[in-house]
Amino acid sequence: MSWIDVTYRICAARDQLEGIAHALALEQSVEVSAEVVTDPFVAENIMGRVAEVHPSDNGPHRVVIRLAMATTGFDVAQTVNMLFGNSSLHAHVELVDVEFPAEFLARFSGPRHGIDGIRRRLQATRRPLTCAALKPQGLSSEALANLCYTLALNGVDIVKDDHGLADQSYSPFAKRVAACQRAIGRANRETGRASIYAPSLVGPPRALVAQAHIARQEGVGALLLAPALIGMPAFNELVAEHVDVPVIAHPAYAGAVRVAPALLLGRLFRWLGADAVIFPNFGGRFAYSREVCAQIANNNRCDWAGYAPTLPVPAGGLTMGRVTELVEFYGPDVMLLIGGALLAPADRLAERTRIFVAAMEAAHADSNAARHAALS
Amino acid sequence: MSWIDVTYRICAARDQLEGIAHALALEQSVEVSAEVVTDPFVAENIMGRVAEVHPSDNGPHRVVIRLAMATTGFDVAQTVNMLFGNSSLHAHVELVDVEFPAEFLARFSGPRHGIDGIRRRLQATRRPLTCAALKPQGLSSEALANLCYTLALNGVDIVKDDHGLADQSYSPFAKRVAACQRAIGRANRETGRASIYAPSLVGPPRALVAQAHIARQEGVGALLLAPALIGMPAFNELVAEHVDVPVIAHPAYAGAVRVAPALLLGRLFRWLGADAVIFPNFGGRFAYSREVCAQIANNNRCDWAGYAPTLPVPAGGLTMGRVTELVEFYGPDVMLLIGGALLAPADRLAERTRIFVAAMEAAHADSNAARHAALS
Repeated sequence: MSWIDVTYRICAARDQLEGIAHALALEQSVEVSAEVVTDPFVAENIMGRVAEVHPSDNGPHRVVIRLAMATTGFDVAQTVNMLFGNSSLHAHVELVDVEFPAEFLARFSGPRHGIDGIRRRLQATRRPLTCAALKPQGLSSEALANLCYTLALNGVDIVKDDHGLADQSYSPFAKRVAACQRAIGRANRETGRASIYAPSLVGPPRALVAQAHIARQEGVGALLLAPALIGMPAFNELVAEHVDVPVIAHPAYAGAVRVAPALLLGRLFRWLGADAVIFPNFGGRFAYSREVCAQIANNNRCDWAGYAPTLPVPAGGLTMGRVTELVEFYGPDVMLLIGGALLAPADRLAERTRIFVAAMEAAHADSNAARHAALS
Repeated sequence: MSWIDVTYRICAARDQLEGIAHALALEQSVEVSAEVVTDPFVAENIMGRVAEVHPSDNGPHRVVIRLAMATTGFDVAQTVNMLFGNSSLHAHVELVDVEFPAEFLARFSGPRHGIDGIRRRLQATRRPLTCAALKPQGLSSEALANLCYTLALNGVDIVKDDHGLADQSYSPFAKRVAACQRAIGRANRETGRASIYAPSLVGPPRALVAQAHIARQEGVGALLLAPALIGMPAFNELVAEHVDVPVIAHPAYAGAVRVAPALLLGRLFRWLGADAVIFPNFGGRFAYSREVCAQIANNNRCDWAGYAPTLPVPAGGLTMGRVTELVEFYGPDVMLLIGGALLAPADRLAERTRIFVAAMEAAHADSNAARHAALS
């Protein structure tokens, strides 16, 4: 039998740790006490077991629980259920890492485009990429399309909908997507570039399929989806069956405080098929640390089960002054998303966009020069 | 314009509270700083605003943010996005309550059966109801069906799949559902009762529709679904479009630590259409307080937007010794779910089930007698 090793962080008194670890192994597998498990097949092959217990003197402890691969049924929803179904309700337990066996991962295809696929579509082989957002919501489709045109005309690679844009009365999905896609096409004809507009899809499964169909008919080059919001199983199925362009995952409602961000945004979103993952950068509006951001980017891009690497997209209050630092920190396989800082003040959007794009090019050149100097 | 009042609990220094409240109103609406919002329609009708700030000397503060109803597009996923999309990533923010305007709630139908509908199907007009779970997973469909038969034969009202039962090799969904539904039918013919078997559905949207179809063909009388696991939008759509029997919501992966359980399990699951809601009872394997459990049950059953009341189903380590206390605590409109405590030791399942059912009847009689005495 094959097993999945699941690591949890536990906040508890040290002398309770062994008991908690054993309770967790049962809770996340058979959900009864061990003496109820009289069936030998279940006891040997299905019941979870404690693999490792790592007490800590300062801060939370760490335990590794081994869960039977067969319990997942190779289904996304059920896998999440096994990893963190009931124990998500335990305030003292946090899900921090998972080691899936190769035969499990082979059942899932991961990102279909990955970093290389996104680069090919953008005709940008090596440099760090730029991303901007259409907002605030409440603007008309025409106003959003104008923003989209200006951002693309001045060199932004991917112009995405704000994740707050849905199918609202003031910018209905079909109308907005048509207008913004026309705008990016016009900008591309003028610049000779291949910028991409990525609309945000949100809703129940049937609406998502309908929105994906509209986006495809309009010829959009990428999509934005929040897996935690629409449901990770719905995300995975939609991407596999109804989408053929790169998919950018947004962390909305990821409640990442209860699942370690490096796992959820770094690894699980990639497993589900995200070609790019937006996450809150350190030093912005969200409290992620440098270390967590480095782990997310590493999990996005590392060798893993033959999956295509996912493009890390740090965001959340980025400013132009940080471009050099962040290109240095993440390296060239990154896309920096600057949202509000481009838009304020609105009358200088074109100028600010050009500064952002130029700063990215300069940072890339600097970073390359530094690397060559270090190598010589 | 109509507004949604959203209450958040904030952990922060008191002198930062005003700033955090304003940042939250922007984060959860326009997602840019206020000076970027130059469009008068957006500023007046879309941008979130701070309605109340309640600092606290001990413990977390409370703020109420007012969000424009129009931003939801009357869509479940987008509504959750507006309530707690980005701010779920803020460790210092917890979503605790929502007041939707009546015109918003009127767009959603809530539970279709509710407590009365469940009672009619069970032919149980006033007494508290009993529920038991088929587990551990790993048992064959035949073994689970045998458990189902024994539990129903000895008087359990609703026998549900453990939420860990999916479409696994050892008890495939179609085979298990057929076997357990046959078992409950046989028990009902022998007892003259109308017990219900509720299989657990889990998977991506297409699999859920297929499973709902199988369940309907087999004639099952209720379904178990975990909205947080399959996605709240998928849950709502499935129930509205593919299910005609009562639906029991399970809290797996509800990560209720970041959204107040009284809101998520008490109110939002009801809004989404849950006819019954399982939640961790106080004093069991989970750390919910008496007060939180009372709030969940109250939110399930209170007058709200004309929605049918939802049946509260406390669970999670209940034992027979607590039946009297809990019937007294929750009143007769409750269903007690005893899982593992019935199953151990397995060779006395029938006897223990009869004791459980008899204890519930006695508790109801006691409770009635006490109420009559109090009234006389």
